Amino acid sequence: MKILFQCDYNEGAHPRILDRLVQTNMEQTPGYGEDIYCQRAAELICKKCQDDTLAVHFMVGGTQTNATVIDAALRSHQGVICADTGHINVHETGAVEAMGHKVLALPCRDGKLTAEQVEKTCLAHGDNEHMVQPKMVYISNPTELGTIYTRAELEELSAVCRKYDLILFLDGARLGYGLAAADNELDLPLIASCCDVFYIGGTKAGALFGEAVVIRNEALKRDFRYYMKQKGGLLAKGRLLGIQFITLFEDGLYEELSEHAIRMADELRAVLEELNYPFLVKNGTNQLFPILPDEELNRLAEDFEFNYEQKTDETHHAVRFCTSWATREENVEKLKEALRGLKQK
Amino acid sequence: MKILFQCDYNEGAHPRILDRLVQTNMEQTPGYGEDIYCQRAAELICKKCQDDTLAVHFMVGGTQTNATVIDAALRSHQGVICADTGHINVHETGAVEAMGHKVLALPCRDGKLTAEQVEKTCLAHGDNEHMVQPKMVYISNPTELGTIYTRAELEELSAVCRKYDLILFLDGARLGYGLAAADNELDLPLIASCCDVFYIGGTKAGALFGEAVVIRNEALKRDFRYYMKQKGGLLAKGRLLGIQFITLFEDGLYEELSEHAIRMADELRAVLEELNYPFLVKNGTNQLFPILPDEELNRLAEDFEFNYEQKTDETHHAVRFCTSWATREENVEKLKEALRGLKQK
Amino acid sequence: MKILFQCDYNEGAHPRILDRLVQTNMEQTPGYGEDIYCQRAAELICKKCQDDTLAVHFMVGGTQTNATVIDAALRSHQGVICADTGHINVHETGAVEAMGHKVLALPCRDGKLTAEQVEKTCLAHGDNEHMVQPKMVYISNPTELGTIYTRAELEELSAVCRKYDLILFLDGARLGYGLAAADNELDLPLIASCCDVFYIGGTKAGALFGEAVVIRNEALKRDFRYYMKQKGGLLAKGRLLGIQFITLFEDGLYEELSEHAIRMADELRAVLEELNYPFLVKNGTNQLFPILPDEELNRLAEDFEFNYEQKTDETHHAVRFCTSWATREENVEKLKEALRGLKQK
Amino acid sequence: MKILFQCDYNEGAHPRILDRLVQTNMEQTPGYGEDIYCQRAAELICKKCQDDTLAVHFMVGGTQTNATVIDAALRSHQGVICADTGHINVHETGAVEAMGHKVLALPCRDGKLTAEQVEKTCLAHGDNEHMVQPKMVYISNPTELGTIYTRAELEELSAVCRKYDLILFLDGARLGYGLAAADNELDLPLIASCCDVFYIGGTKAGALFGEAVVIRNEALKRDFRYYMKQKGGLLAKGRLLGIQFITLFEDGLYEELSEHAIRMADELRAVLEELNYPFLVKNGTNQLFPILPDEELNRLAEDFEFNYEQKTDETHHAVRFCTSWATREENVEKLKEALRGLKQK
Repeated sequence: MKILFQCDYNEGAHPRILDRLVQTNMEQTPGYGEDIYCQRAAELICKKCQDDTLAVHFMVGGTQTNATVIDAALRSHQGVICADTGHINVHETGAVEAMGHKVLALPCRDGKLTAEQVEKTCLAHGDNEHMVQPKMVYISNPTELGTIYTRAELEELSAVCRKYDLILFLDGARLGYGLAAADNELDLPLIASCCDVFYIGGTKAGALFGEAVVIRNEALKRDFRYYMKQKGGLLAKGRLLGIQFITLFEDGLYEELSEHAIRMADELRAVLEELNYPFLVKNGTNQLFPILPDEELNRLAEDFEFNYEQKTDETHHAVRFCTSWATREENVEKLKEALRGLKQK
Repeated sequence: MKILFQCDYNEGAHPRILDRLVQTNMEQTPGYGEDIYCQRAAELICKKCQDDTLAVHFMVGGTQTNATVIDAALRSHQGVICADTGHINVHETGAVEAMGHKVLALPCRDGKLTAEQVEKTCLAHGDNEHMVQPKMVYISNPTELGTIYTRAELEELSAVCRKYDLILFLDGARLGYGLAAADNELDLPLIASCCDVFYIGGTKAGALFGEAVVIRNEALKRDFRYYMKQKGGLLAKGRLLGIQFITLFEDGLYEELSEHAIRMADELRAVLEELNYPFLVKNGTNQLFPILPDEELNRLAEDFEFNYEQKTDETHHAVRFCTSWATREENVEKLKEALRGLKQK
Repeated sequence: MKILFQCDYNEGAHPRILDRLVQTNMEQTPGYGEDIYCQRAAELICKKCQDDTLAVHFMVGGTQTNATVIDAALRSHQGVICADTGHINVHETGAVEAMGHKVLALPCRDGKLTAEQVEKTCLAHGDNEHMVQPKMVYISNPTELGTIYTRAELEELSAVCRKYDLILFLDGARLGYGLAAADNELDLPLIASCCDVFYIGGTKAGALFGEAVVIRNEALKRDFRYYMKQKGGLLAKGRLLGIQFITLFEDGLYEELSEHAIRMADELRAVLEELNYPFLVKNGTNQLFPILPDEELNRLAEDFEFNYEQKTDETHHAVRFCTSWATREENVEKLKEALRGLKQK
Repeated sequence: MKILFQCDYNEGAHPRILDRLVQTNMEQTPGYGEDIYCQRAAELICKKCQDDTLAVHFMVGGTQTNATVIDAALRSHQGVICADTGHINVHETGAVEAMGHKVLALPCRDGKLTAEQVEKTCLAHGDNEHMVQPKMVYISNPTELGTIYTRAELEELSAVCRKYDLILFLDGARLGYGLAAADNELDLPLIASCCDVFYIGGTKAGALFGEAVVIRNEALKRDFRYYMKQKGGLLAKGRLLGIQFITLFEDGLYEELSEHAIRMADELRAVLEELNYPFLVKNGTNQLFPILPDEELNRLAEDFEFNYEQKTDETHHAVRFCTSWATREENVEKLKEALRGLKQK
């Protein structure tokens, strides 16, 4: 059996989450997130964000969450600015466009947008009714390339969004892994105050599934549940989401699991650097993008699963290794050994 | 604490399902339904339907499933015929229209469409490009009013759909409870051969969540996963769905749980009939729609939750009581007692 | 050559309109409605409506106008209430749904909605996020059945819309013919003050094409040109619309042409009544819906074109005869004669 | 009064077109393009294309035509490849996305796509259901930058589209001006055989308005009128389009007018070259994109209207001058003189 490093959702959930689901299983609760567990989880998250005016909703997966938030925010003549590598632009089968909205994809470096790019786009569009009106900025943190925003970068993006009346939306599918990175400068209160809306990913960080959407923007709060229902995102047994987020947030499990993944990634990163492999992108989070010779990748692929990201030249590919809350120390050891072994043959 | 009879998704899942999730929890599998559990569950369902050419996909919830199937089936000038009480017409916040398709809602009796109505609609639309082109028929079994189709009715609908090149889609969110009803004439092989696509509901019948979509129509099979992804319905940890459906279908759990709900409903029905309450609709499934005086309903509401469906006159309402796989005998006893007590005061 | 009475757009335009187009033909103007003719036409219409704060935009056709106004008014979880006979519900190939919005069609009498129906629908939907949120009321005047609203009916609709924060939209594709009817109680200032948005039809009333959209609602005014452009409704040579509406409105041509059509219709109506034909709907506008024996219709069809509307029994159909600005007295005489002749054979 | 060179739709129509509209004005015809004029115009166009199996439909404007063709061609998980400068990507307010489809914009040189780019995109997308499925290629000829495809380029695009089962769509809003260019290698029979669908622009080439859509692809032919109606593109008095295209195509008026525009452009181009102004893009059609010092542009702007396209450095802009069927020799002389005068001050 191969060891899987190709993504951060290869296992189920942290055992404490399953335990809690088992304990509460036969309790009767109302449906659609109107239960005490969702309420309690929302309170915990508000507390973490140090703002009890935030609205918190729980959804099942990332693509659904992105489409719901974006459709709730935009009218049909408005578009969302994002990095051309953004998940909504590349890997959601046109979910945003299927809702009627244009993704205004900008060329980017290392998966990140800058405030300057946003401003330039707004100025270029002006009041020209022949062009889509920019109304939202979508960023992810960590990005699809594992990079993270600095405090200054996020604050500048927030400022430019307020200047041009744009809604700032942060996709935090892997947020825990960003916050646990060595070079991280962000925290939840800062994110909650800079963004109009963001989400805290559970699926990739210890839950069976689940994303907690946190809304500060008053207009977005109104009628948000209509959008959730319409997009198929109002889970009948909503409590399953509430229970999971309570477990993650009531006594630090989310942070603990995130830190574990980063430790595992750091170990791999150290070996890759030691072996002088170049990286497609440098980052300090749980996704690593080293560039290896195809011949070595073929040998690695006998025992490990990883993702091919990009052909970098005729004989090399950039690949992706992910660690996660579930990554076992022993498997990381095996991969490290295998990497070292590549050079010895 | 009140006892909840307002819907059939007040509890978690059958304990065997949770056990199986716990047992498999730390196994590594690929994501998005491409794991051995989903494959095994699909095979079990094909076997139950006696047709191994069927495509089976697993989704999280009903609204999402309906929107995905319908959008995959229709082009934008085409519409879906349904009963005016149909879930897609009333209780999905316009999810079908949000995908660009008109719901052609027809007045119906007891939640059911007839082949004759379908034919009449097709003839009325003809080739008139000023009107939406009917291309799909959506039925639910049991319907939103708890009624079920006879074998003849389903076969006639299937015949008229083939005559006019319409796709027949059966929403089986509560399918188990239909198949377990005393007057049921259908079975899975018949449904699979009559319909182009249908789904077997897990959420309301013992699973934490999950709907198994079964596709016979070749054109619909092609690219169906693109639609699942776009609508946010490709669960990252798809195996959670596979594992649940294996548990439900490998040794008769689904039928067993469905029968339990029907037994519980039959007991309630017998008492209501004995007490001479009229019904909004007569049916033999797990949803009961008795009509009671408001004054009695107020007394019942002190101890029980149920749904108000419709005001039938100045002093009466039709309400809904649901039983489910999880309904406890003792709670049914309490409700029976309370109903009998109403008359004695 | 048969004489056509099947609709009110069988001819080109009133000659004065063509003259004006010829006179201005080689002038250079900016595109997209930003020319002096559109500006002048807008001013004339504001003056007619006695409100110079109104925004006026010119579009080419009715379906496009309906879709643009409705999409500009609604967010995707909101729907538009209309009579089940409404043009947007039946004869626009799902254009509203293609933009993502549900049409909440209510059963109606003679093509008209009542304030009571609207209120009942709002109450039934309440704040239930499982149902589409009603946000707009669409009426047509004259309706698709040629009936018109009384002053009291329109004022009540306006009041209920304000009570429930709904946008009232009046489709005036045949507005001139309504205003010219003997029993008409409305005028442009009243319509402009009761409705959030309405349009004055040119296509059916003397222009080559063109509908003048009049907007009172401030939120709708904002960004309306974005919607026009996106829906393909910003005519490159927008001046063609401005010039036509100037001609219609600068010295009473619109009223004059409308009155002509009504005189022609009244003559036909008188003969049909004299011959004791029943009507599907009684009205005083330019569309007549008499019910005739099929055998007589076959004879009429040798010399005249008219529309079959509805089979009323095994041997009769309701048909539609339209008059218009272009209907010739001599052709009406021929039809009257033919009708009288039917009885004599 | 300034002389307008900013676009090619500043005037009305060629006088012969208006004459014909006047002559036929009071004839009675059926609506929606089902008249003898549309039929005759379609036959003329088929003849020009040397293929009488083509379907021809007439629409009012370009944005509407693009949205209609693209929505008729694509299902919601499919996208359209285009140059990033393509009109559908930049200047149609997201009309394609509003219909639910992603525009897959590729970086391009001089407004043109290559077969190689298309192939690379198809290979990158593969069968990955997480990405939009490429299904159509949109090109314009002339492009938005006035460039044209060579015969070989068009044939290669056609071949790659057939290889990957893509629909090739050519936007010919300015097609006449492309065919009349000195370096043109295309003709209508070639275009009709290479493309699945294209259109011949009337609005910018002598008509009041109108685009003739020519369809070779059998699947696209089916139900196309439904899409036209739904998008508001089935003109009530469709004959207005038929009459205009008859006039343009029955005795060479379209070619004649196109050649006039090119002659006018060539004169301007010669002067600009003589004065050593660089061009943003070199082309031989009716749009010129010279780069001038801002100071000179300010002086020109006193007497002439033109479009600012792009700031090329701190003191220069690329601007656009258009000629058209209506451009007067004397106005070109004035502009030439003014250009020469710039250097003399």
